[in-house]
Amino acid sequence: MSADRYVVGVDFGTLSGRAVVVRVADGAELGSAVHEYAHGVIEERLPGGDRLPPGWALQSPEDWRDVLRHAVPAAVAAAGVAPADIIGIGTDFTACTVLPTAADGTPLAERHPDRPHAWPKLWKHHAAQPHADRINALAAERGEPWLARYGGKISSEWEWAKGLQLLEEDPETYAAADRWIEAADWIVWQLTGAESRNVCTAGYKGIHQDGAYPSEEFAAALDPGFAGFTAKLGHDLAPLGGRAGRLSAEAAGWTGLPEGVAVAVGNVDAHVTAAAADAVRPGRMVAIMGTSTCHVMASDRLAEVPGMCGVVRDGIVPGLWGYEAGQSGVGDIFGWFAETSVPASYAREADARGMSAHEYLTSLAERQRVGEHGLVALDWHNGNRSVLVDHDLSGVLVGQTLATRPEDVYRALIEATAFGARVIVETFESSGVPVEEFVVAGGLLGNRFLMQVYADVLRRPLSAIGSGQGPALGSAIHAAVAAGAHPDITAAAAAMGKRVPAAFTPDPARADAYDRLYAEYRRLHDHFADGALLHRLRAIRNEAAR
Amino acid sequence: MSADRYVVGVDFGTLSGRAVVVRVADGAELGSAVHEYAHGVIEERLPGGDRLPPGWALQSPEDWRDVLRHAVPAAVAAAGVAPADIIGIGTDFTACTVLPTAADGTPLAERHPDRPHAWPKLWKHHAAQPHADRINALAAERGEPWLARYGGKISSEWEWAKGLQLLEEDPETYAAADRWIEAADWIVWQLTGAESRNVCTAGYKGIHQDGAYPSEEFAAALDPGFAGFTAKLGHDLAPLGGRAGRLSAEAAGWTGLPEGVAVAVGNVDAHVTAAAADAVRPGRMVAIMGTSTCHVMASDRLAEVPGMCGVVRDGIVPGLWGYEAGQSGVGDIFGWFAETSVPASYAREADARGMSAHEYLTSLAERQRVGEHGLVALDWHNGNRSVLVDHDLSGVLVGQTLATRPEDVYRALIEATAFGARVIVETFESSGVPVEEFVVAGGLLGNRFLMQVYADVLRRPLSAIGSGQGPALGSAIHAAVAAGAHPDITAAAAAMGKRVPAAFTPDPARADAYDRLYAEYRRLHDHFADGALLHRLRAIRNEAAR
Repeated sequence: MSADRYVVGVDFGTLSGRAVVVRVADGAELGSAVHEYAHGVIEERLPGGDRLPPGWALQSPEDWRDVLRHAVPAAVAAAGVAPADIIGIGTDFTACTVLPTAADGTPLAERHPDRPHAWPKLWKHHAAQPHADRINALAAERGEPWLARYGGKISSEWEWAKGLQLLEEDPETYAAADRWIEAADWIVWQLTGAESRNVCTAGYKGIHQDGAYPSEEFAAALDPGFAGFTAKLGHDLAPLGGRAGRLSAEAAGWTGLPEGVAVAVGNVDAHVTAAAADAVRPGRMVAIMGTSTCHVMASDRLAEVPGMCGVVRDGIVPGLWGYEAGQSGVGDIFGWFAETSVPASYAREADARGMSAHEYLTSLAERQRVGEHGLVALDWHNGNRSVLVDHDLSGVLVGQTLATRPEDVYRALIEATAFGARVIVETFESSGVPVEEFVVAGGLLGNRFLMQVYADVLRRPLSAIGSGQGPALGSAIHAAVAAGAHPDITAAAAAMGKRVPAAFTPDPARADAYDRLYAEYRRLHDHFADGALLHRLRAIRNEAAR
Repeated sequence: MSADRYVVGVDFGTLSGRAVVVRVADGAELGSAVHEYAHGVIEERLPGGDRLPPGWALQSPEDWRDVLRHAVPAAVAAAGVAPADIIGIGTDFTACTVLPTAADGTPLAERHPDRPHAWPKLWKHHAAQPHADRINALAAERGEPWLARYGGKISSEWEWAKGLQLLEEDPETYAAADRWIEAADWIVWQLTGAESRNVCTAGYKGIHQDGAYPSEEFAAALDPGFAGFTAKLGHDLAPLGGRAGRLSAEAAGWTGLPEGVAVAVGNVDAHVTAAAADAVRPGRMVAIMGTSTCHVMASDRLAEVPGMCGVVRDGIVPGLWGYEAGQSGVGDIFGWFAETSVPASYAREADARGMSAHEYLTSLAERQRVGEHGLVALDWHNGNRSVLVDHDLSGVLVGQTLATRPEDVYRALIEATAFGARVIVETFESSGVPVEEFVVAGGLLGNRFLMQVYADVLRRPLSAIGSGQGPALGSAIHAAVAAGAHPDITAAAAAMGKRVPAAFTPDPARADAYDRLYAEYRRLHDHFADGALLHRLRAIRNEAAR
């Protein structure tokens, strides 16, 4: 055995899986590979041809196994390390992506591929909203203590809503499902040959709080047939960074890794990124900024922070409370604007300069002084998760004149999302949960202008993750802990995680100017927050569209 | 002399003058001609080359005389009528377009072409705002009774503000100006050889109310040198439809019309359109809809209707009160949107169909049901004249989602201007001034979809002017009255004006649906009407731009 040892991290995303080989000592990323899912997202028709209802989004378990078969060996080959020097593997997954299996872990989709409900439901399967609505109404009515941990509303994307939909729309498949399991845990089962359940998805997606799932009575009150639902879940939860088991012979065959190496407990892509950014200590908030933004932060304090996606004990790192907040539209809003609102003359000019629409708009917007465009916007185009937890809100734009140009609105939208982030940070702090550092990960990190706006608006230095493959690196860090190479996630993250402190620092004059604009944003925010006008508009729209 | 007699109407616009030859008996338009001003709008530099400050807009008197020399003979030739059968000529002008002249009417610009202040100031000269602000502040402080007739604010475009600017920036030219005269009256002077002043511009632009201009004390309090200002104006006002004089030999030479025919008292383009639309009776509101909308209406009742541009006794037709209201952005808002916010894919599709951006957006927007876009907008992109009288307001757009398309916003903007019109109509009626009929004139009349939205939103049939050259036809009608061919404007308008009653009728279901959206518009309107947030944004913008 050579001096250096390595681990493999595998990140299962929405369209592909990525494997990275990482040196245990310092987190050096030596090789990586991506494998696209053959079926991608199954939205319109089952692979067998049957049409799916609107709002459905499924995936194929075999696509996930293929990532183990292809991406892992390719990453090892690219790294040029000897498989014998690899001591562990860790994984993370989108969540809540959940599937029904037999008692031995066989996906029901592989037994009944003609039944839509037998397939894994991807996180963005949105057909269980009526079920989520009933769960929320009942929980509120019964005063369920766990509801506040989720900002007063659980999502239609989560285990309970999807499970209730399964029961009521396909009771036979529900009955046949011995297990109702997160893909994050199922993939670990594939690697080890034994079922395990991780604390993170159980808490954030399974409503496991204070040692228990919602009660039998609660489940039965939703639907008599739903009594016993939690028997399909896992009650013996494994801590993050723990070893779920050892690599089975079969999985060793798929991956080319040595049989018996440590397999880490499953995890969620956003939460495992905290380790990659060396941000698992209390008060280090990681914002994974892409089409939307997910904020995760560990803290030693439990508080009812309004509008959380979830607060889970040990949910990011053992021994601390894990907070998750979110902005439901960020990059999506900029993308929508670039697609729908940029005139042909701008498109031509961008082309001539070899720029994308985003780059061209940014080049114009960044020349402006703070407030010069005279605009303020509310970034609610896709609703508001934190801190209002209201998906029926919509966007607001104020201050347009006949001189308003596309770059003005573009900049105002960027600023609006930064103001939205500031509302979240301030809400944490005013609830007694300090945010000591704001660490950025995700695709928007590449937009330096946007990052500077965030630094100025937040009036604080922004740290940046130092890796382009945060989740996979985070999984590798968890693998190193599971393999015993580091004593715990915090130590492993310190050794292997990558954080550039103060990558963007605020300009005091701009920060002062933004304080004034932020005050206007807050006024608009608070005026429209009750949703009265926006909900009426939404109702009028929905009636007209019927 | 043949059986048929004719009159000539001449409309002096912003970029050109148009003459039309009209049959006295029935208003048939037999021929017309347009003459473009050689100098157009003088905004950047004087014809001699000197650069002008920002906000300036001048015109050349010789350009106006050229309309008499070219457009009038061309229209007569096109009509194929014998000049001997023409019994009168009437004119209308943009207002307030005002110039300093010598006692004999010679424009000072023709004596001192190197002095910017010697030139006629076009209506849209906006460099006298500080002077207007002082006039308004002083009038409010002194409790001047006339202020309420103008919605509490006179405009920087009007005679007093431009006159005060002239005094304070070029006292020599001010002193040399024996007369400070509206172009509407100056052109009549050119035709007759004698000065006259019309009731309309004196009232709407000169602040002549209840028989007098603002007092000497008021003028002196603005600036000691301004005492005596009203001596440069006209105190002996001529009624609309009256005969200002007879065509001089010189003007007969320019126009080819018989010397001695009747010349009508001067008038304003918007106000004279009421006659062309046969809408000079009490309660017939004429909306001249173009880049902005001007609403004129005669009434037998005097009331303080909030937000008027002006209320003037005899200002549209003798014996009635003439109300003028306005929406400061209408077609301008649609034009701004089409120019700045329509993506290349739409431009290509419009091109492929041989449509303009407006036509293509309309074709998409008109398929929607009321409220389907989920949006409501405030049409304040260019401020709000009626009923808020606040030019520092700005636009608001509420309800955007990631599914919002350009045609959705386009439709919402059209609807917003219709809601703005409804606010004006309702304000008249709640002030005790009934609006019995809504008659549309102006360029937007050609947009059938937009007209239908207005009919549905206003919940009333819309009448339409039956002529494409409303102001010139209106001037011809005034000429017929001045020539004695009809006893008064009302009778002449009935005989010669063209109004299509109920050209657009509301659909009850759509009108009901719009009532709900209008309620939301009113709530937004009232929320932002105090201007607090919008004024702060404007202040931030102005500071940042400095």
